[in-house]
Amino acid sequence: MSVEEALASLSHLPYQDLGFARVDHHRALRQGFPEVILAQGKSPEQVAAIAQSLAAHSDRLLVTRADPTCYQVVREALPEATYHAIARAIILNRSAGELRPGVVVLCGGTADIPVAEEAALTAELLGSAVVRLYDVGIAGLHRLLEHLSTLRAARALVAVAGMEGALPSAVGGLVAAPVIAVPTSIGYGASFGGLAALLAMLNSCAAGVAVVNIDNGFGAGYLAGLINRRPD
Amino acid sequence: MSVEEALASLSHLPYQDLGFARVDHHRALRQGFPEVILAQGKSPEQVAAIAQSLAAHSDRLLVTRADPTCYQVVREALPEATYHAIARAIILNRSAGELRPGVVVLCGGTADIPVAEEAALTAELLGSAVVRLYDVGIAGLHRLLEHLSTLRAARALVAVAGMEGALPSAVGGLVAAPVIAVPTSIGYGASFGGLAALLAMLNSCAAGVAVVNIDNGFGAGYLAGLINRRPD
Amino acid sequence: MSVEEALASLSHLPYQDLGFARVDHHRALRQGFPEVILAQGKSPEQVAAIAQSLAAHSDRLLVTRADPTCYQVVREALPEATYHAIARAIILNRSAGELRPGVVVLCGGTADIPVAEEAALTAELLGSAVVRLYDVGIAGLHRLLEHLSTLRAARALVAVAGMEGALPSAVGGLVAAPVIAVPTSIGYGASFGGLAALLAMLNSCAAGVAVVNIDNGFGAGYLAGLINRRPD
Amino acid sequence: MSVEEALASLSHLPYQDLGFARVDHHRALRQGFPEVILAQGKSPEQVAAIAQSLAAHSDRLLVTRADPTCYQVVREALPEATYHAIARAIILNRSAGELRPGVVVLCGGTADIPVAEEAALTAELLGSAVVRLYDVGIAGLHRLLEHLSTLRAARALVAVAGMEGALPSAVGGLVAAPVIAVPTSIGYGASFGGLAALLAMLNSCAAGVAVVNIDNGFGAGYLAGLINRRPD
Amino acid sequence: MSVEEALASLSHLPYQDLGFARVDHHRALRQGFPEVILAQGKSPEQVAAIAQSLAAHSDRLLVTRADPTCYQVVREALPEATYHAIARAIILNRSAGELRPGVVVLCGGTADIPVAEEAALTAELLGSAVVRLYDVGIAGLHRLLEHLSTLRAARALVAVAGMEGALPSAVGGLVAAPVIAVPTSIGYGASFGGLAALLAMLNSCAAGVAVVNIDNGFGAGYLAGLINRRPD
Amino acid sequence: MSVEEALASLSHLPYQDLGFARVDHHRALRQGFPEVILAQGKSPEQVAAIAQSLAAHSDRLLVTRADPTCYQVVREALPEATYHAIARAIILNRSAGELRPGVVVLCGGTADIPVAEEAALTAELLGSAVVRLYDVGIAGLHRLLEHLSTLRAARALVAVAGMEGALPSAVGGLVAAPVIAVPTSIGYGASFGGLAALLAMLNSCAAGVAVVNIDNGFGAGYLAGLINRRPD
Amino acid sequence: MSVEEALASLSHLPYQDLGFARVDHHRALRQGFPEVILAQGKSPEQVAAIAQSLAAHSDRLLVTRADPTCYQVVREALPEATYHAIARAIILNRSAGELRPGVVVLCGGTADIPVAEEAALTAELLGSAVVRLYDVGIAGLHRLLEHLSTLRAARALVAVAGMEGALPSAVGGLVAAPVIAVPTSIGYGASFGGLAALLAMLNSCAAGVAVVNIDNGFGAGYLAGLINRRPD
Amino acid sequence: MSVEEALASLSHLPYQDLGFARVDHHRALRQGFPEVILAQGKSPEQVAAIAQSLAAHSDRLLVTRADPTCYQVVREALPEATYHAIARAIILNRSAGELRPGVVVLCGGTADIPVAEEAALTAELLGSAVVRLYDVGIAGLHRLLEHLSTLRAARALVAVAGMEGALPSAVGGLVAAPVIAVPTSIGYGASFGGLAALLAMLNSCAAGVAVVNIDNGFGAGYLAGLINRRPD
Repeated sequence: MSVEEALASLSHLPYQDLGFARVDHHRALRQGFPEVILAQGKSPEQVAAIAQSLAAHSDRLLVTRADPTCYQVVREALPEATYHAIARAIILNRSAGELRPGVVVLCGGTADIPVAEEAALTAELLGSAVVRLYDVGIAGLHRLLEHLSTLRAARALVAVAGMEGALPSAVGGLVAAPVIAVPTSIGYGASFGGLAALLAMLNSCAAGVAVVNIDNGFGAGYLAGLINRRPD
Repeated sequence: MSVEEALASLSHLPYQDLGFARVDHHRALRQGFPEVILAQGKSPEQVAAIAQSLAAHSDRLLVTRADPTCYQVVREALPEATYHAIARAIILNRSAGELRPGVVVLCGGTADIPVAEEAALTAELLGSAVVRLYDVGIAGLHRLLEHLSTLRAARALVAVAGMEGALPSAVGGLVAAPVIAVPTSIGYGASFGGLAALLAMLNSCAAGVAVVNIDNGFGAGYLAGLINRRPD
Repeated sequence: MSVEEALASLSHLPYQDLGFARVDHHRALRQGFPEVILAQGKSPEQVAAIAQSLAAHSDRLLVTRADPTCYQVVREALPEATYHAIARAIILNRSAGELRPGVVVLCGGTADIPVAEEAALTAELLGSAVVRLYDVGIAGLHRLLEHLSTLRAARALVAVAGMEGALPSAVGGLVAAPVIAVPTSIGYGASFGGLAALLAMLNSCAAGVAVVNIDNGFGAGYLAGLINRRPD
Repeated sequence: MSVEEALASLSHLPYQDLGFARVDHHRALRQGFPEVILAQGKSPEQVAAIAQSLAAHSDRLLVTRADPTCYQVVREALPEATYHAIARAIILNRSAGELRPGVVVLCGGTADIPVAEEAALTAELLGSAVVRLYDVGIAGLHRLLEHLSTLRAARALVAVAGMEGALPSAVGGLVAAPVIAVPTSIGYGASFGGLAALLAMLNSCAAGVAVVNIDNGFGAGYLAGLINRRPD
Repeated sequence: MSVEEALASLSHLPYQDLGFARVDHHRALRQGFPEVILAQGKSPEQVAAIAQSLAAHSDRLLVTRADPTCYQVVREALPEATYHAIARAIILNRSAGELRPGVVVLCGGTADIPVAEEAALTAELLGSAVVRLYDVGIAGLHRLLEHLSTLRAARALVAVAGMEGALPSAVGGLVAAPVIAVPTSIGYGASFGGLAALLAMLNSCAAGVAVVNIDNGFGAGYLAGLINRRPD
Repeated sequence: MSVEEALASLSHLPYQDLGFARVDHHRALRQGFPEVILAQGKSPEQVAAIAQSLAAHSDRLLVTRADPTCYQVVREALPEATYHAIARAIILNRSAGELRPGVVVLCGGTADIPVAEEAALTAELLGSAVVRLYDVGIAGLHRLLEHLSTLRAARALVAVAGMEGALPSAVGGLVAAPVIAVPTSIGYGASFGGLAALLAMLNSCAAGVAVVNIDNGFGAGYLAGLINRRPD
Repeated sequence: MSVEEALASLSHLPYQDLGFARVDHHRALRQGFPEVILAQGKSPEQVAAIAQSLAAHSDRLLVTRADPTCYQVVREALPEATYHAIARAIILNRSAGELRPGVVVLCGGTADIPVAEEAALTAELLGSAVVRLYDVGIAGLHRLLEHLSTLRAARALVAVAGMEGALPSAVGGLVAAPVIAVPTSIGYGASFGGLAALLAMLNSCAAGVAVVNIDNGFGAGYLAGLINRRPD
Repeated sequence: MSVEEALASLSHLPYQDLGFARVDHHRALRQGFPEVILAQGKSPEQVAAIAQSLAAHSDRLLVTRADPTCYQVVREALPEATYHAIARAIILNRSAGELRPGVVVLCGGTADIPVAEEAALTAELLGSAVVRLYDVGIAGLHRLLEHLSTLRAARALVAVAGMEGALPSAVGGLVAAPVIAVPTSIGYGASFGGLAALLAMLNSCAAGVAVVNIDNGFGAGYLAGLINRRPD
């Protein structure tokens, strides 16, 4: 088989061309979860069309950063879909599997909850049961330390924080499991839209910490879900 | 006592779990002042619930960055609370102690006044009497130098400035007491939202100057109040 | 038990005070791996003293960013320790366990190999067998795609790349396991010391990717090792 | 001829002074295409006046970054002009030449389509036939590789991508023709308004890639059009 | 008295003009401590001359960022001066007063010790007794919490940390006294020379924290010394 | 006279304390022009009060960055004041002196005109006659070179440009008089709000160029006016 | 053919695995030019081994950013290779084809010549004859304009400049052919290592300009060579 | 005369092509001062050749940023040239005109003197007598205010400062003449190589201040010299 033939043969992978989007139905096979739709930058109609195309081939669906207007349009196409207003997520879940314990999602302050919820919902959609510990920032360490046994029982943790972004380092020093750190854009002035927290988390002196994009609760929940999957 | 027991025992510190927030009633004991509520990023209802919880255990309360809508909701829960529109602060003060002189709050220009007022109100809430010297920027040095004896009598000073942020250096060269510098986001273009003033203040050639976050009048007033406290 | 007693009781956790360092012997218990020594910023004598203290309580030891001079001093204190020049790592491993397959470390170019090796050695020290795939950057996709079955068999992958940092996204789109991305400082001009690759990786459109600090091969290898651990 | 006379003689080049603009009618002669109007920062009336002045001397016209209001005003002055809402472009094309094949415009995701369309329309206005390949981001490589023969047949390619901006590198490794990379502001958090994609593209490890400004579809389409022109 | 006369009269304040420097002998009167010499950017001969001029009028002297060569030259002019190699400080102290307890200097890691020592020596020179707590970073919280009673007894604390710079927030949540935070340039990659730690500290969620320039141990020690001075 | 007396005597300089502002009536004496009011960040009422105070002592007045609402309030206090909508400037000019020729204000594009007009109006208020050359950007050099004799006759030039900010360098290479460069925030993407133009102008390879803040037409016009003043 | 088979078949593309590098011999077929070796970050021995491997399959070879030591090692393996010291390039060229006119390489100042030479040598290696116009910066426009007919005759231009980076805009306004802009790191202060020139070029108001990485003469010469290739 | 002829005629301006440089002998006529040589980035031999070419047509010569080695080579070609080691400037001055008073050069600290000297020497070469006021930073205002009458007598001032860069604002508030501000790279940490001072100066609240590049003493001295020239 020649090189040209080999490359050309890749064209047979299944995807659906909607004109404005190529819906990758192969992803669920390849990666165990269907394509996730980032609503931001797409029209509600585009989101609904992609969602409908995906839902025809998969038992689960996730749309992130969706506002209520977007949900109205999606619901018409997919009446089963539900909307989680705090996390701005549209979710469809027809899978009946039991949730596997092992994921803890923490956040530093009340204002970080939307991002933390996006992470928690995503991990749940991937099959994990999630313990939520919110408003446990490091300026009141006893609120965090109270839950030490919960933290240590986790197989994967998501630590969400804005401002100085120190929560992942404090958590990372207490547990043996991986910590996925999520900086948020919560703060003002020299927070620079979450840059301060992002840099802090990248420089964490605790081993076992990795970082996702600012406000990317989805990415962190997805990783925690992957790590907590059942052993093969 | 084992390590596990020791860490677990920290769970007995008093805080109240509101679901979206863990109100740290221990802080007033530990730090001499109850938790301060940053309204930004919280719903008015969340602010009001936290405020009510705190007010049940403390004689003073401070909410920063609160808009009038937030105050309307808080006032229903706490009719005693007052609103300082310029500083965007909600304050409740049932303490009757006399204010201790020693704090001076300066600002460079008229547009810096909201941040300066936040600092002054905070220091007052901590028990200090505050002298305000506003619009004393360094382009008209005589306006500042007129008050030299006032400056020199202070035990702690707060210097608030936007644009080139030079006020703390000028003040720091004139006095022996600590100067807390507050950069503001006042300016345009290469001010970059207060970055120029922040960097200038961090590089102050005057000894005795420390810096807080851009527009963080609260933080500066809090520090000045701490420094000016009665000797033990 | 009062709050004060609770906090004070934490002082009984085991660590050794060397004057310039407090060696945390409790960490191996708490986190499953002893403290890792970052040689940068410490004198060779300080590194050797900390290493000796740790080696007295643990069967494994890792020193990162160690130059040959540092190794000379450490070897006198710990003759068993070996030096991996490319990764600039000092390693001592007395554990006899079999390595568990499941980790793949990839890098984009020849110049990224030192960082990739630091990741691979770390994952090995945590008990994983590591497959190395070097110089598989996306400008020659066939070099990467050749190893597709190896990639898909992994439980955790480390993708190391400088310049535009696109390797993790390409890998992340092909596999179902977590991908730990490591930006390197390889590049010039608008690479800005690895900032370009760092930002690219944080913005990866592939799900399942998290990022560690620039050139932090250790951090990525540590995480991959944690993820690949035997199920409890 | 003296220096002064030489410099002064340049004043005879044809342009029309509208008061707020000097319309450069010489440009079509000098550069083969009339001045392009950037609507942003100009009033609709200013745009319309410049457009009318240009249309009196040229058979083609392009206005970029025009909102519908701007188009309403331009249409009154130039009823022939059409509006392309997705690309926010106003176009007038009286030339009858056949389009020359050779330009491919790709984009990574649905949200990048407005910028890609601006590029495609511009290249068409310069006389090229354009093949559009949208939503072929690198997290699903088979969607890109399917079109390998189309890519390889191109004389110039435009690769538009936000987020990590990796598409141009992947394309650049597959083809022999120049690739003009366009970073977009699509993304959030550490995308920093397109900075991440911009830096990634500037650091591309593929040879044959050059970059234009963030969201500058026009600039890329213009270059692709120039490269694809008929040989002299 | 006219304005011109008033401004002119300021010329009578005492300083000594060395040609390359104007030594401000009035500062000790005005601010309670003589001018401090920043050796960086000055020749050893310039430093020695300024030091000699100051020592003729004051009982204390501090030179910061002095390398051993600089000290050799200063010692010839001032044989009493001593050199503190770790802190790179030259000190002359003829004052006999007893040191007043109340200052605690902490640092996160071994590599931060030079900056912490500069802070401690400065505070001592201002008359404070200093308790040093080094290598108490937040990845091993028990090392910090062990000293809780020491922390709570302080009137002023200096918290020095590089990397993610989280130490001041953790300390600030435990104590009632002011915390002066010093970011250090310790770290690599996305530490960006201390920028990560600086931003984290500016965004501290703990009240009572102010920040000085990166690596500015002197500035922090000076402030702590001021705050801890005897009540008037 | 003691130091304290000298500094205190500065308090006799004339200014008027409005509570929120200290109007510096001495400035007109000291600097030849009364204080200029930056409306941004002040309420219309504050602007009007300051304007009224200044107008009582001076024959000229300038308010910059004033929106129409602000002007409505000012006009009630000062009916003589006029509003220049494009430049967003409020001006009062009772001086009858003849304007001295010598200032040229250039801008690169139509969208830069508001900043250029602010510069031109300011220079006129300082007594200069101003020649305006707008839309003479370097992509059409003949539009600039046509006016070479005008450029060379100037005693001071203001060159306003956004985007790549190259105009000052081109002008600076043609004339012998000082060129004040004004970067504007016109542009998009990697213009970063005028940063690109600002950096370009600071790095100008032409001698005789100095730069003011982004969009600071006032500052440039003021300097040009100062330079063009009648010889003493 | 299944997806798995299709992807796996890509493994048959020809490359040579040297352990530390996978030499892509397919690239010359795919892209018309063999892999170019970036010496920076590789040991001389690695460079020599890759060069030898490539030279066995291709008639041309280019090593960029090679220092003389590197060349010494390469020459032993490939005695035909020549070294261009100013451009720091190692070149081997066994092709006998005539050079096709059409490329012009310009630079702003003498210090930009090394980058310009790298561009010129690369374009020559791709088969183009190159006209060099050095030190034609815009502060002396007549030096550039003298060569107007040469500029207009080009099919592709490379404009190299540091400092304010204005040369590409000036050139881009004069010609109809594509201009590849190369910012250099020449400059100081606010040049920030070439960032100022990079941003300026990205914001060029001239159409037909694209940009490569700072100091990337190779990339620009490569693109110019591609554009100037013989029509198919 | 046609456009082509007009542009072509510019080729007759006098310059000398040295191969690596085009020496612009027309500049002295056009701008009143010959081309200034920036030694940085040029070999000593290149500097010497350019200097010799210029000195053949002009009575004055300035080379900036020249190290002693460069001077050795230049002196062989031009024995008259002198070297100013602090300012790193090579100067040749055969003009006999009397210096015109009117320029004051100030700097904030001893470490800023090299930049200040470069400014002063440049202004002297342009024909101005210069008063130097060094080490007059704003942390000791009386050192500056002592010279108030000197400041007010100046026609142009150069204010050089590193760290927080506040000197130009303080000076600008005291005088009526233009102030050219020069940020220096003196400082550490958050000075970011002079960025802090640069931003501060660009945001100066004093009118009449313009800024040149970091450490660009030459540029400031040149401007001050232009402003202080004899009235025509």
